[in-house]
Order: sequence, then C-alpha cells, then structure tokens
Amino acid sequence: MSLVIIGTVAFDTIETPFGKTDKILGGAGTFASLAASYLCDQIKLVSVVGEDFGNDNLDLIRNRGIDVTGVQVITGGQTFSWSGRYHNDMNSRDTLATDLNVLADFDPIIPESYQDCEYLLLGNLTPQIQLTTLERLVHKPKLVVLDTMNYWMNVAMDDLRKVLLKVDVLAINDAEARQLSGEYSLVKAAKVILAMGPKYLIIKKGEHGALLFGENQIFSAPALPLADVFDPTGAGDSFAGGFIGYLAKVKSINFTNMKNALIFGSALASFCVEKFGTDRLVDLTEEDIQKRLNAFVALSQFNL
Amino acid sequence: MSLVIIGTVAFDTIETPFGKTDKILGGAGTFASLAASYLCDQIKLVSVVGEDFGNDNLDLIRNRGIDVTGVQVITGGQTFSWSGRYHNDMNSRDTLATDLNVLADFDPIIPESYQDCEYLLLGNLTPQIQLTTLERLVHKPKLVVLDTMNYWMNVAMDDLRKVLLKVDVLAINDAEARQLSGEYSLVKAAKVILAMGPKYLIIKKGEHGALLFGENQIFSAPALPLADVFDPTGAGDSFAGGFIGYLAKVKSINFTNMKNALIFGSALASFCVEKFGTDRLVDLTEEDIQKRLNAFVALSQFNL
Repeated sequence: MSLVIIGTVAFDTIETPFGKTDKILGGAGTFASLAASYLCDQIKLVSVVGEDFGNDNLDLIRNRGIDVTGVQVITGGQTFSWSGRYHNDMNSRDTLATDLNVLADFDPIIPESYQDCEYLLLGNLTPQIQLTTLERLVHKPKLVVLDTMNYWMNVAMDDLRKVLLKVDVLAINDAEARQLSGEYSLVKAAKVILAMGPKYLIIKKGEHGALLFGENQIFSAPALPLADVFDPTGAGDSFAGGFIGYLAKVKSINFTNMKNALIFGSALASFCVEKFGTDRLVDLTEEDIQKRLNAFVALSQFNL
Repeated sequence: MSLVIIGTVAFDTIETPFGKTDKILGGAGTFASLAASYLCDQIKLVSVVGEDFGNDNLDLIRNRGIDVTGVQVITGGQTFSWSGRYHNDMNSRDTLATDLNVLADFDPIIPESYQDCEYLLLGNLTPQIQLTTLERLVHKPKLVVLDTMNYWMNVAMDDLRKVLLKVDVLAINDAEARQLSGEYSLVKAAKVILAMGPKYLIIKKGEHGALLFGENQIFSAPALPLADVFDPTGAGDSFAGGFIGYLAKVKSINFTNMKNALIFGSALASFCVEKFGTDRLVDLTEEDIQKRLNAFVALSQFNL
C-alpha cells in the first residue's frame, strides 16, 4: 500500500511583511508530501522539475522518506517557478510571476513501483493531467483526494467535471465552493458539489478553519489562532497532505476518521506558516506534533 | 440574584433577499433578554421606549418572564427605530435610517428591585450610558459583559476606555478588535485589549463562529452552517444574551463554563437568524434547544 501524491515541485520567490526570499523550494507536491511524511512512510511523489532543480532540493524531499522515482528531471529544462507578494493582512497576495517552464509539457509518468497506490492526492494541476494520472493507475485507489482552484473552473470546467466524477474527496476554498456551485450558502454549495461526484467536500477557510461535508454530516475544524503568520505559502497543500496522510495511516475511511484527518491537516498547516517555504516542515518532531494536536483539542473541545 | 440587561428596545424595518418587514420589534436589549430567558428566570431589562411602543410588544417580552420595570415609557415620545437592507451575502448591510427618538435622551434608571444584580450585560449604547449604569448599581456585579461597536471607538474612545476598566468580558467583532487594538493578528489584538481592562475577550466572527481569549487560553466556537440565513438582525445580541444567560444559570465563572457559554450563545444566535426579527426567539422549546446543542457537539467534537 502506498500514498501517491501528484503535484508541482517548484521554486518560489516570496515577499511578506517579514522579508523576502531568493528562489526557495516550494510547490503543492512538495508541501503535501512533506506534511504527509509525518504520518505515513510509504509516500510516492509524481512531479516534474528542470535540470536546475539540484540534488540538494531532491535530497531534502528524499530525506523525509519520500520516494521521488516519479519526479521527472527534464534535461535542459527549467523548474516551474512562482513569485508572489503577500499583503499586510497575509490573507491576500499578488502573483508577480508564474513561469510554467517544464510544467507546461508535464506528462505524469507513473512508475511501476507506484502501482500499489491505495491513497491518491491529486494536487492542483490541469484537470487533464489529473485525469491522465487516474487512467494510468491500474487499480482504482481506495481513496482519491482532489485539490483544484478557481482558474480551472474558468478555463477547463468540462475536464474538471470529469475528474469530479472519479474522486472521493474534493478540497477547495470557500470562494471556489461558491463559484463551483453557484450558491452563496456553504450548506447549499456543498449539496450541489456533492451531487457532482465526490462523497466528501472540504471547504478551506484559511484563518477561519475548514468545514467537512459528507454522509449527511458537517464537521467544523478550527484554525489555530497565531500571533504571527510568517509565510502562508503551502498551508493549503500541507493541510491536504496531513489530511490524506492521516487516512493512509489509519487505513479506514469514515466520517469519524475524516474529522481527525482534518485536525491533523490543520495542525500540519499551522506549522507550515511559521517559517518561510518548507523550513518548518522539514524538522518537526513527534513531540512538536503532539503538542500542536493538544492545542487543537484545548482550542475546540468542550463538555456541556 | 438577577441578570440585568441594558440595551435598546427598538422598531426595526428590515429588507432581506427573502422579503421586507413593516416596523417590527427589535433592539439589542430585546434580542439579548429573549435569548437569555431560556437559561435564566431572573432577567431584568433596562431600556426606554416611546408611547408608540404598545402593550403587545411589551407583553411579548414580559411573557418570556422578563421584568420590564426598568423599561421607561416616555409619554409623547417615539421609540428608537432602525431600518436596513441586507445584501445578498447576508453578511453586509446598509443602514437606511436611524431615528434615535427617545434614545437620544436616555437616562438609565435602575429600579430598586434591580439592585440584586449579579450578572450585568451592558448592551451596545453610548459608553457614557454604560458608565452611568455601572455607577447606579449599589453592589458591583459578579460579572459584567460589555458589548460595543466601532462607532463608539471613533467618537467616544475616552469614555469607552473608562468602561473597559470596569468590565469582565468584552464582546466585539473581528474588525472592531483590530480597530481597538491596532493589531491585525487576533492573538496580538487580544493581548492588547485584555491589557485595557477586561479579563475575557470574545471576538465574534459571524458565520465563522467566535473566539474566546482569557486566562492564557483560547477557545474557538464554530457557527452552525445554515442553508438559509433569513434575517441576521439580532444574532450578535442573541449570542450575548445566551452567553451571559448560561453563566447566570451555572453561577460559576471560569474558562470551562465560559466555553460552554459560547456554545449556548452560538446556539441561540443560530435560532435568531431563522426568521424575521424576534419571531424565532419567542417560541423555542427545551427540545429545540437541546437538539441544537447536540448539533454543535456533532459539528465540532472529535476524538483523536
């Protein structure tokens, strides 16, 4: 059994009120697999990078026990890169540049050794690549989690609808849920979206936490209130990685475990934003994670 | 022992995407005392209305067991009235008219029978009226909860600072917390505000729930996701009433009880928005409330 994660591996250049980075390691696939690596030891990453990516960065991922056999290194190619500037509220950002580079022609090759995939995270990519990934897996995974964004709803809605029919969980933010459903109320939005295919819907609300809909139930996970959000980049991906990582660990899919998975995802996301890029996600200890989980319990549990 | 609530009793004219009302019963004091009446049977209201208010409206409040001895009826005066229009998102609204009428000269008279006050809710009014109320109580209440708004921060900050020194709990929304503290992070904002006097701070976040800060702890209460928010008017006041009503019921003030109080407040607020004005708050049953509390438990409790 393995957890396969497909997503971007990228160079990010980030400006926040706290400072500015050079090109640092980023990408949805990177954040998600690092976060999941604290919960599951059979993670296999599918992605693409350029010749410029460098062994140090690949080692950083590999050192967390993540299999990178499926990360293609394109000779002569440049790694996908993104640069952005966060506003003072840290909730909104401007994209300064997006250079797709090798991502433009990404053909997701699934190594033979990945065919034991039982848990699949389809990171935010073109719906067509997500469909291709699903087609190239010989066995249907036990659980498929899909991340996507408003951009694909605008330019590739037909393909996105096809992907939605094949996934178990969709994770999007509140604005995207409203756009996808045409409903303002998130309860109504969830009803519309769950009729499009997924059995579960996660609505990410940033500093306001996340909602889980499915099995005619709703769960609300809080976000940990933080004094300083240092760099929000990758928080949503870390959340998704922590979420599916937990389910791959407990190997049983039901609403009770999904609720816990949301808390683990939220905890991993709360670490991610404490430092620039992947800095905080590479050296967590078991104790760090346990303390953070305890903080989520204290934050949200009551006894009427 | 009694719970004294001072706040407006008003006529509201409301437009929402669901319809438009004539002048209906409203006001912070009304919503708060109705909500609290499901938890505490010794509620004493201080307010002012005009001769136009009518016995039916007063009876509606009285019928919930609320003492209205402290509600002055000004001969020849007109009741404070407000009219507003909610936008489609139901989170923002335009005030179409505010007629202070008898509220302009409101002098809060505390009847002798109210001097057993142990729990006091200072509803959103001028800080000067809130100060006068505190001065006119012979014994310091066991718990004082203050509601205020951005308007008073703009025009009466000196008086508001004096009130803050005398209260135990402040309840404001997230934008107001940011304005009052000058800090964007709510954790930092809470630190600044708790240094101004209150021992506890509640930050109301509407559809995103509420946060409680105090005793070096944080609690996050979810809001119940609703398919239809029919009329948000009075939700914050119902929340405050439910909150202090619960504490007056259990008669013990600590962080554990405060957490439960937040859940009771959230539950009462979730009823308030289901119908226009006070319609839903006048006929709740014990079973209605217990079911709603169960929904909050299901919504937010997990077991790692």
